[in-house]
Amino acid sequence: MNFLVAEYDANILHAGQHQDAELGRFFMRIEFEPSAGLPIQHFGERFARVAAEFQMRWTLAESGKRHRVCLFVSQHLHCLADLLQRYKAGELDCEIPLIIGNHADGEGLAQFYGIPFHHLPVRNGDKAFVEAEQQRLLREYDVDLVVLARYMQILSAEFVAQWPAQIINVHHSFLPAFVGSKPYHAAFQRGVKLIGATSHYVTADLDEGPIIEQDVMRVTQGDTIPDLVRKGRDLERVVLSRAVRWHLEHRILHYDNKTVIFD
Amino acid sequence: MNFLVAEYDANILHAGQHQDAELGRFFMRIEFEPSAGLPIQHFGERFARVAAEFQMRWTLAESGKRHRVCLFVSQHLHCLADLLQRYKAGELDCEIPLIIGNHADGEGLAQFYGIPFHHLPVRNGDKAFVEAEQQRLLREYDVDLVVLARYMQILSAEFVAQWPAQIINVHHSFLPAFVGSKPYHAAFQRGVKLIGATSHYVTADLDEGPIIEQDVMRVTQGDTIPDLVRKGRDLERVVLSRAVRWHLEHRILHYDNKTVIFD
Amino acid sequence: MNFLVAEYDANILHAGQHQDAELGRFFMRIEFEPSAGLPIQHFGERFARVAAEFQMRWTLAESGKRHRVCLFVSQHLHCLADLLQRYKAGELDCEIPLIIGNHADGEGLAQFYGIPFHHLPVRNGDKAFVEAEQQRLLREYDVDLVVLARYMQILSAEFVAQWPAQIINVHHSFLPAFVGSKPYHAAFQRGVKLIGATSHYVTADLDEGPIIEQDVMRVTQGDTIPDLVRKGRDLERVVLSRAVRWHLEHRILHYDNKTVIFD
Amino acid sequence: MNFLVAEYDANILHAGQHQDAELGRFFMRIEFEPSAGLPIQHFGERFARVAAEFQMRWTLAESGKRHRVCLFVSQHLHCLADLLQRYKAGELDCEIPLIIGNHADGEGLAQFYGIPFHHLPVRNGDKAFVEAEQQRLLREYDVDLVVLARYMQILSAEFVAQWPAQIINVHHSFLPAFVGSKPYHAAFQRGVKLIGATSHYVTADLDEGPIIEQDVMRVTQGDTIPDLVRKGRDLERVVLSRAVRWHLEHRILHYDNKTVIFD
Repeated sequence: MNFLVAEYDANILHAGQHQDAELGRFFMRIEFEPSAGLPIQHFGERFARVAAEFQMRWTLAESGKRHRVCLFVSQHLHCLADLLQRYKAGELDCEIPLIIGNHADGEGLAQFYGIPFHHLPVRNGDKAFVEAEQQRLLREYDVDLVVLARYMQILSAEFVAQWPAQIINVHHSFLPAFVGSKPYHAAFQRGVKLIGATSHYVTADLDEGPIIEQDVMRVTQGDTIPDLVRKGRDLERVVLSRAVRWHLEHRILHYDNKTVIFD
Repeated sequence: MNFLVAEYDANILHAGQHQDAELGRFFMRIEFEPSAGLPIQHFGERFARVAAEFQMRWTLAESGKRHRVCLFVSQHLHCLADLLQRYKAGELDCEIPLIIGNHADGEGLAQFYGIPFHHLPVRNGDKAFVEAEQQRLLREYDVDLVVLARYMQILSAEFVAQWPAQIINVHHSFLPAFVGSKPYHAAFQRGVKLIGATSHYVTADLDEGPIIEQDVMRVTQGDTIPDLVRKGRDLERVVLSRAVRWHLEHRILHYDNKTVIFD
Repeated sequence: MNFLVAEYDANILHAGQHQDAELGRFFMRIEFEPSAGLPIQHFGERFARVAAEFQMRWTLAESGKRHRVCLFVSQHLHCLADLLQRYKAGELDCEIPLIIGNHADGEGLAQFYGIPFHHLPVRNGDKAFVEAEQQRLLREYDVDLVVLARYMQILSAEFVAQWPAQIINVHHSFLPAFVGSKPYHAAFQRGVKLIGATSHYVTADLDEGPIIEQDVMRVTQGDTIPDLVRKGRDLERVVLSRAVRWHLEHRILHYDNKTVIFD
Repeated sequence: MNFLVAEYDANILHAGQHQDAELGRFFMRIEFEPSAGLPIQHFGERFARVAAEFQMRWTLAESGKRHRVCLFVSQHLHCLADLLQRYKAGELDCEIPLIIGNHADGEGLAQFYGIPFHHLPVRNGDKAFVEAEQQRLLREYDVDLVVLARYMQILSAEFVAQWPAQIINVHHSFLPAFVGSKPYHAAFQRGVKLIGATSHYVTADLDEGPIIEQDVMRVTQGDTIPDLVRKGRDLERVVLSRAVRWHLEHRILHYDNKTVIFD
């Protein structure tokens, strides 16, 4: 902040900070308007030297440069429909140049919102081939964020490794409870009084990546498994869309398998 | 209900029901005032025959007959103080004839509320002896519900077996996440965005008994482990006191390691 | 229940009851399967006599006969998009034969979901004319529920009187706080720490009809009015869709300007 | 922050900031450790000049200097018992040198926690006299925060004027809904689906002061007015104790009848 104010006469719009006393680390996010006539490029070069001196890890993001997001979807369309409606309403500041589905169900919605849809079904044995094609498309469309909008295929460790903290998933439980498949069934069996959903960055360890957002809803003995599924959809929509928005607004830092969310 | 209305002219105050379609079981709770001159004893005998015919499991509880509750406590007194204040304010319809502590910390509060306090410290090797003394006291005081108000000793399977669905514990996590000790530390490490607390009946399987109530609270990166502990205390108070009140009001049925809560 | 069991050998699927002790009224909802060969019509006739004897108000709804719902919309499409997605996903058991908008914005979504859209703009002085046309369409399409999915026109008392407990609105505040227009602005000015949304049946008294559902979300000083508007949209979607679903499933009784919701 | 770092080699423990873009105001809270050998007094003098230059309003609070808090109470003791238990458990970093009650009910708890209790009943006509005595006691005990722990007397505008942003009250509704007396009755009549509680600074306008914290809880048609009162007590405890803790930790700024809460 000193640096910004002192040398660049920048207008600081928002500043947030977090300290992890245990790890002895300090985190900061500053949103600022560069002063007239100062090229942001110049700022980056200058700041790199300061950062090197103090051993900071840093990134500089231009708010005018929008993220390019690819949505992955299977047969359940509620998250896809929700994200697209928010996108169209201007709630998500990004471009969505393509949607990839391992089922064709999402194609209608994609067309309605005018977004190319690629149907890449995964059949026995050809997952590596499909992932190669997915990767090709992501590169072709210059994507920098993948959102798994209830995509029901597990991505390989190799795939994930190429997109560190760039793949956001929604898991339909309050992690770390009920990892793995059929979490609503497991929640029903255990007799919990609240169900949850969790959005997180995808890592090679399934359901173990840094948690971005979680929310819960009350259930009762009157709720059957289909009721849990239905109620859970509302949670999934909300926690996934928040995670995506925060990522797009550069509000998420991640370290040590955790996230810091700057309001 | 037919039976009550038709033969006894009873005034039904409240009726709740639940069906578990999967298991093909039906659950019902009826609160009623027997008609004048009808001894409740007579009703019980009569109903036993009906129940046998239809293979019902049933209990008959007289609302005038209050539960006798023993609180177990260690060093953390927030749940104890909370339960005693609710007890004194008339929120918990029971008698609390004694409090047992493995530490002496709770003695002052016990005295203030005029309740005998028994200090039974558990030292290496004498747990069986202490449990025998606890059992003796529970029998002596005619107790029918044990509430573990943050009692930090694990009860033996033998002890638990004698009090089926009569021991209520509060676990300081959103079960089944973070079973075992130090759940707030585990929650902090995992980076969850909500912490929880769970009240449940105690069974021989630690933290695996039927869940009675759960609640959660939002946390952020700014919350240290002591903050989680402090926030969690508010959850523990609430979920434990609800569980105790519901038990006292005969609102809880349990089956298949689950509970049914009748509003 | 006696009646159903005794004479008709009906299979009771679900029964809920509520008593208002103050008013001395009793409310009951029973979901049942009539026994084979018994016409539901016959049941109605028979029950009418019982009901008359005990001065009950009652209705009999056939679950196979779906509600016919008309959505009213203006420019904000988030509730419309949400309801249509739920409708298509099978979450709302009804027919939606038409959508009416005083703006044309909703037309695209209507088309996508294959539902006729009627654009009836309200200009100065012609509200009575527009309402007459709306009424004509509702009759023509045999509608029995009107859902105001953020419809920003106030319906006249005459219109409302023809649809008692058949018009559901969503108000973007936690009623009775912030009645009237611009509730998010009012909430911001007052500095509340939670914002809310309320779904209710529409009566002649604006924002005073029986409340069906409410929910809230935390806000902070960092939230601007546009942030409240955005956060509130998530609440509006949820409280409106719950209200519609409960109405469709005959879970709502209303009396004395209140609702009873049967789980 | 520049100033702190540059001249004083202070260790910044936590920094929070808020901007009100509409009003063009900037708010900041910095928690810091002064460097060895630097008297905090010196810092204050030095900072006063900086603040004057930039027209800042500021305060400097020494964390070692504890607030001195007086609790006012009437007959309902749940908030009193809760605050005292938190106080004893070390959750509230303050001194509580006295408790004032217009009823004697709180005396036992005061004695248990070893705090002088002053019984100052308010009878017809002598409110001015009682308030004078309250003021005398507050001065005598060097109090700087008054907490109305369900104190059921309205303080005069003259009294309030002497303690700006130094009196915290808990109102048993989700303000601005249900101002005035008997809010649970009003909530019941209106048929709301959630009840709330609000802690706020007291101003001359009853129930209109800056809101500090709010929370809500779900209610159903099955909840009678006594149920709402009971459920509400849990909300009152929580929102009041949070407000008190935040005040004690200098986390609350207030302006324009709003509060800014620094996490």
